[in-house]
Amino acid sequence: MTSATSLFSPVEADLCVLTENLKNLIGARHPILYAAAEHLFGAKGKRVRPAIVFLVARATMPDQGITERHRRLAEITEMIHTASLVHDDVVDESDVRRGIPTVHSIFGSRVAVLAGDFLFAQSSWYLANLDNLQVVKLLSEVIKDFAEGEIQQGLNCFSTVTIEAYLSKSYYKTASLMANSAKAASVLSEVSDAQTQHMYHYGRHLGLAFQIVDDILDFTGSTEGLGKPAGSDLKSGNLTAPVLYALEEKPYLEALIEREFAKEDDLEQALALVKDSRGIERSRELAATHARMAVEHLSELPISEPRQALVKLADYVLSRLY
Amino acid sequence: MTSATSLFSPVEADLCVLTENLKNLIGARHPILYAAAEHLFGAKGKRVRPAIVFLVARATMPDQGITERHRRLAEITEMIHTASLVHDDVVDESDVRRGIPTVHSIFGSRVAVLAGDFLFAQSSWYLANLDNLQVVKLLSEVIKDFAEGEIQQGLNCFSTVTIEAYLSKSYYKTASLMANSAKAASVLSEVSDAQTQHMYHYGRHLGLAFQIVDDILDFTGSTEGLGKPAGSDLKSGNLTAPVLYALEEKPYLEALIEREFAKEDDLEQALALVKDSRGIERSRELAATHARMAVEHLSELPISEPRQALVKLADYVLSRLY
Repeated sequence: MTSATSLFSPVEADLCVLTENLKNLIGARHPILYAAAEHLFGAKGKRVRPAIVFLVARATMPDQGITERHRRLAEITEMIHTASLVHDDVVDESDVRRGIPTVHSIFGSRVAVLAGDFLFAQSSWYLANLDNLQVVKLLSEVIKDFAEGEIQQGLNCFSTVTIEAYLSKSYYKTASLMANSAKAASVLSEVSDAQTQHMYHYGRHLGLAFQIVDDILDFTGSTEGLGKPAGSDLKSGNLTAPVLYALEEKPYLEALIEREFAKEDDLEQALALVKDSRGIERSRELAATHARMAVEHLSELPISEPRQALVKLADYVLSRLY
Repeated sequence: MTSATSLFSPVEADLCVLTENLKNLIGARHPILYAAAEHLFGAKGKRVRPAIVFLVARATMPDQGITERHRRLAEITEMIHTASLVHDDVVDESDVRRGIPTVHSIFGSRVAVLAGDFLFAQSSWYLANLDNLQVVKLLSEVIKDFAEGEIQQGLNCFSTVTIEAYLSKSYYKTASLMANSAKAASVLSEVSDAQTQHMYHYGRHLGLAFQIVDDILDFTGSTEGLGKPAGSDLKSGNLTAPVLYALEEKPYLEALIEREFAKEDDLEQALALVKDSRGIERSRELAATHARMAVEHLSELPISEPRQALVKLADYVLSRLY
């Protein structure tokens, strides 16, 4: 199995510079933000989003080095992602993420709101100063999509939705950032519009595969591996692919969901019904389909090491399931 | 005494359209956001910030009507302002603002974070779609300044600062939005760079006067008039102009502040010392100076009703003290 680290070797140096820049940028302002920044931009994050930006940047201009604006874009991408995580943890009242305590649980919601706002504010300022209106639009779309996703998730709590609605929520939550930042990286490389569209769709399908895999792991993973209790999504009423497919085979699931797992063992029963159905298998197929579609959008890139890493990234996303 | 309402009569119709647009924009997405939007964009707000945008828009192009982009800018201005209030209330754990309960206290910090993020996200998207990179930069500067102001306020809690540092914090908190949005309105009117700079400085000085007056009222106002208990700023360690001036005359104030009003009657004593000093009088003079400087920056605008309203607005800001 490929690890994320070896996968990102063509941009490892870029990611190192990025981490240092982000820590300095955020931490220099305030002792508490410094602690939060150490926490947020420490070793734990996989930095998948900035890695995509760097890989697309290098793959779309294989003969030149990447530009300072590409670096800035990668930083913006990670800032937006991190800001949304910090605020998500306040909204969801989560105490743990990736196995470590959240900013919200360590420093309180006061600092978490402040740190998230500071990150959003910095990112929108850096964004404006990239001096490229198309890139500003692409990334402000992402910020809007995050808010939209949060609202849809709130609205659809414990209500069964179609797979299409689930994919649309997953786009807002995860794929929008990958799609629009991959496209933005290629816009900064000044490639053709057709090529920037391919980068958008690469990011979009990769992001959907990524989210579907995450949602499967919520059913199949261990508490240690996930860094949170298994079944958390289902418990909180966030109905994802495995349970939506399982509902087609197990009508009793609907009753359990409707009463919001009010009775003892309801949640355990629901988890067992999902595992006993083809829900997880069909979700895997859905993720694999999106990973395959992502790779198809790379076909017009010139052969290069970064392009190869983008291909492998799609495999890696699926490999997390095994 | 002029009321804010009669002051804004040249743009009253504009403000009506704005309020409806904002309610629809925010409320249509979610029942809870709808309640929050009714609450936020209801009758209580004085809508000073969008009024400035409309007045500058009309004063800089007195012969044409204002454009749809001016309207959008005014909406963005109010969205950013409102988002910052909603998050401020979470950060400060305030239960009351302008005499009515905060979103945070009614709906909880979950909805308050979400509503604020949604407003910031919408505003950054509308901003990008104004298709004017200069305006994007001006307003993203504001968002960054808000975050900076919050952080400075947190850092300088209970520490005595210079009047210059106080004014810098007041710029971040209040004047930046008025300055940059007044300038942005004139940029959309396509007037000369010199004129857009005048509009920036008008907004900047007006905003500083506005904040100084607010800070004086925290000492002189009644709980009913303020919609919060008098002396709230001092109590929370936010040292403003009256107390900073008073410190020059009353050294004992410093001891009270240093021990963070730990002993009984400390706060009452401190309030009495401020009232017994020239702190409030000197703060009034400072506010009047900034109001006067604001008006000086209007001298090159053609004579018109909206220009006259901008002049009167500076008087109105001071008249709140009497």
